[in-house]
Amino acid sequence: MKSDIEIALNAEMKPIEEIANMLALTKEDWEPYGHYKAKLSDHLLEKLATRPDGKIILTTSINPTPAGEGKSTITVGLGQAMNRIHKNTIIALREPSLGPTMGIKGGAAGGGYSQVVPMEEINLHFTGDIHAITTANNALSAFIDNHIHQGNELQIDPRRVEWKRVLDINDRALRQVVVGLGGPTKGMPREDGFKITVASEIMAVLCLANDLQDLKKRLAKMVIGYTYGKEPVNVEQLGFEGALTLLLKDAIKPNLVQTLENTPAIIHGGPFANIAHGCNSLMATKIAAKLGDYVVTESGFGADLGAEKFINIKTRAGGFEPDAVVIVATIRALKMHGGMDKKQLETENLEALAHGMDNLKKHMETIKQFNLPFIIAINKFPADTQKEVDYLINWCSKEQAEVSLVDVFTEGGQGGTDLAYKVVELCEQKQSDLTYTYELNDSIETKIEKIAMKIYGADGVEFSSKAKRQIKQINENGFSNLPICMAKTQYSLSDDPGKPGRPSGFRITVKELHPSVGAGFIVALTGDVMTMPGLPKKPAALNMDVTEAGTIKGLF
Amino acid sequence: MKSDIEIALNAEMKPIEEIANMLALTKEDWEPYGHYKAKLSDHLLEKLATRPDGKIILTTSINPTPAGEGKSTITVGLGQAMNRIHKNTIIALREPSLGPTMGIKGGAAGGGYSQVVPMEEINLHFTGDIHAITTANNALSAFIDNHIHQGNELQIDPRRVEWKRVLDINDRALRQVVVGLGGPTKGMPREDGFKITVASEIMAVLCLANDLQDLKKRLAKMVIGYTYGKEPVNVEQLGFEGALTLLLKDAIKPNLVQTLENTPAIIHGGPFANIAHGCNSLMATKIAAKLGDYVVTESGFGADLGAEKFINIKTRAGGFEPDAVVIVATIRALKMHGGMDKKQLETENLEALAHGMDNLKKHMETIKQFNLPFIIAINKFPADTQKEVDYLINWCSKEQAEVSLVDVFTEGGQGGTDLAYKVVELCEQKQSDLTYTYELNDSIETKIEKIAMKIYGADGVEFSSKAKRQIKQINENGFSNLPICMAKTQYSLSDDPGKPGRPSGFRITVKELHPSVGAGFIVALTGDVMTMPGLPKKPAALNMDVTEAGTIKGLF
Repeated sequence: MKSDIEIALNAEMKPIEEIANMLALTKEDWEPYGHYKAKLSDHLLEKLATRPDGKIILTTSINPTPAGEGKSTITVGLGQAMNRIHKNTIIALREPSLGPTMGIKGGAAGGGYSQVVPMEEINLHFTGDIHAITTANNALSAFIDNHIHQGNELQIDPRRVEWKRVLDINDRALRQVVVGLGGPTKGMPREDGFKITVASEIMAVLCLANDLQDLKKRLAKMVIGYTYGKEPVNVEQLGFEGALTLLLKDAIKPNLVQTLENTPAIIHGGPFANIAHGCNSLMATKIAAKLGDYVVTESGFGADLGAEKFINIKTRAGGFEPDAVVIVATIRALKMHGGMDKKQLETENLEALAHGMDNLKKHMETIKQFNLPFIIAINKFPADTQKEVDYLINWCSKEQAEVSLVDVFTEGGQGGTDLAYKVVELCEQKQSDLTYTYELNDSIETKIEKIAMKIYGADGVEFSSKAKRQIKQINENGFSNLPICMAKTQYSLSDDPGKPGRPSGFRITVKELHPSVGAGFIVALTGDVMTMPGLPKKPAALNMDVTEAGTIKGLF
Repeated sequence: MKSDIEIALNAEMKPIEEIANMLALTKEDWEPYGHYKAKLSDHLLEKLATRPDGKIILTTSINPTPAGEGKSTITVGLGQAMNRIHKNTIIALREPSLGPTMGIKGGAAGGGYSQVVPMEEINLHFTGDIHAITTANNALSAFIDNHIHQGNELQIDPRRVEWKRVLDINDRALRQVVVGLGGPTKGMPREDGFKITVASEIMAVLCLANDLQDLKKRLAKMVIGYTYGKEPVNVEQLGFEGALTLLLKDAIKPNLVQTLENTPAIIHGGPFANIAHGCNSLMATKIAAKLGDYVVTESGFGADLGAEKFINIKTRAGGFEPDAVVIVATIRALKMHGGMDKKQLETENLEALAHGMDNLKKHMETIKQFNLPFIIAINKFPADTQKEVDYLINWCSKEQAEVSLVDVFTEGGQGGTDLAYKVVELCEQKQSDLTYTYELNDSIETKIEKIAMKIYGADGVEFSSKAKRQIKQINENGFSNLPICMAKTQYSLSDDPGKPGRPSGFRITVKELHPSVGAGFIVALTGDVMTMPGLPKKPAALNMDVTEAGTIKGLF
């Protein structure tokens, strides 16, 4: 089989104008960015306000493992399959970050015959959204340091500036820096650090804003640090929310591309799934629902993090509900959850598989708690044996869970039509309302306990003394009614990445909390979260090139 | 009169497709970026190779003063005027840097009724070229620090890393930083600093490359620092020239926009005019010459820096010659050169004007040295008196110099038709070949002396002991045959910004030299050059906004 980039470069793409025409968009509704990308107007939602919404299908997965689950590939493949069975369906995905592309071989545009294209554009600068966020984030840093340098009217404590600079690059040397060195003409010295751009609060703000003015309101509320008197300082006090909004006026417009099978895909926003909520923009999802009868959209990591945040953060901000959930699993990954070593996954092992089902089971229970119908999508791998597949399907049958064996990686949409038919049926089943995990006016402690106990299966939550102090401060500052954004390892239901499967008898420890007031959530950290990746000894960039003939090499 | 942004937002722009059609471009020759911007194919030059070249008109000026000369405005206005007299003319300009736009009120897209549009796009993210350069520059920094961190096979001396990080933001706190703090997982600690993106050598490389493969060759040659044994280390040794080229594959494509009067304008690249050569890209100028019968293009600062580098660096790299030169001057600025205070410029002062003519005179002599025909364009300001104008015109007549009084700011192209007719005549006068200021195989000292004595009117050059050591090293490393890029104050012909007019009896002091081997020049610094601007106490960004009605505020 060909590599992802070979398949992508041989795609028979339609001019983006044709995709826009398929969606009945008029000239005012979109702008071209090259021949195969477009930006949709940020006024499209207003214009289509009276149009009924399509059904929203959310893809999620078991806890990820190094074996791979292929959630993006299933998302793209299901979108293609839905169109093959003549259901007008649009895909809504996150945009990939350039930093990791340069560092490790990989990408976030699906795989095999279920990819979004032009893959090499989407994985490089795309339409510049992430660069605009980098610019806005770092302009704000410059404004903060300039304020301190020019008299510090607001009495910002240089030791308590929480706003970090960002770059869309994997660069460990920037994790911890000192800025402002070199004397009085070079600012006030202070400790600082860089995050990768997708970890900027501005990315989360962009992804949760309902329109440009909502974006501005959220930017204004972002807390950048604290005064010497420990009072929070926000962007509005500095007076730069207008400038930041201006810098983001195009980034807020969702991007339209297509899949290998010419299914329309709206790719927009890509916040971290630990210190942020991990899904594409609200505007992308909502516009997709106006333009299609069905939307397939993705959440980050496993259901314990991604789906939980999709429900409790994103749908709350957007005022919508998903209609069905697809839980992606692979036999390989379930065997790893059952205790098997990564190197042996090619060998049949029904016992490990049986043990691993516990992880899937917990995520099924989670989706049931939300009151949402779901289906399990088994992403087929070549080494899966018939016995393993049979075991899994029987297990689902006993659990009275819908299941579909999917191979969209090698077959494209054709490999997902069974899933597509079942998903259409599933969407008709939803009868009652979505149930949130917690109420917004629960105390911060209660909200976190409800997530930990209901979603992770923990016995309870420990709060460090620092966390307790911070909760007190957050309450005093009036931010306590925000939803919680849990930053927990994605590899385990617990906060210990070494515990696969379905651990029990554990407690979650919350070490720190940070209010992301603009984004509209409180981040609760249960461990060290790496917000600036490093490069490996031999970065993927070493193999990248553009040849004399113009061929792109080394992407994926 | 309306403000620049009001005029720009009320422009009757043609869809970029119409501009492309005017230039007889086919579908393969360009890609849209929105409805009013396009990128031209980087293969266009090859395709048009056999087409004859249009005449190239270079605009330059007297030494700039705070009174303003309006060189960009004249460049745009002349382009418009040429088309009014039915000469098929294209404008080639630099792209503005976002950092200063946020910091101080101003822009680099012309002014009044001689602007390029869409002005608000051109002055914000435009087509992402500068962001791509930021990314490539900082990816290289990450690769360097990662190399040092992962074993340092090349034995790069962390104290001798010359490659700096960049951001397109005015941020004094980043001028001098320490990176790699926080222990062994966060890289190797070392001193570093950030420049503004347009000061990146990659910007100069992009602007001097003849095509994408030439770009790659130049990137490969960039010296990033020195080993413990003081040997230069370049990008090719690190192995990342392919990845950097891939990151720049779209940035190398020149951008097509239009003026307020729908004259085609190619806006591409914008290197600093002190530590780099300060003009738009070679490819933009050469493509403009293939598409138009005339090109109006601009060099940086005054003729002592901008025109000198345009001739000795850019035309050498590109293998072309200008056909005529326009020297822009204002009566206000000439009076400042004649010793008048900035606050009194509204008052008639023939004596100051007479004294100030010396500065213009020297630049005329410089252009004569190049063997190029020239005309003086007087950019009219409301406070200029008839006596002052008459004096200036008589003076030119005595000097047997062509002159034209221009008011393209308030009148658009109509205010420059006299200049346009005279420029067309001037282009016919060029008979003999261009004369360079120095030979490439002159010694470094001789090259600098020739520039200082012939162009600045200095008596000679002093080299600091550091500069002498560096010249020895540059000679040993085999880089001595490159042209020189002088980094000198733009405010004076001398290296002392406090000496306006035409100083005499002075020597130039060269403090440091840096080889920009990829760009293909040796930078000679005659003073401290600020490569990262700072913000004022009240940055322009404070007034920026996008209103609920969608109106952009605070730009210019």
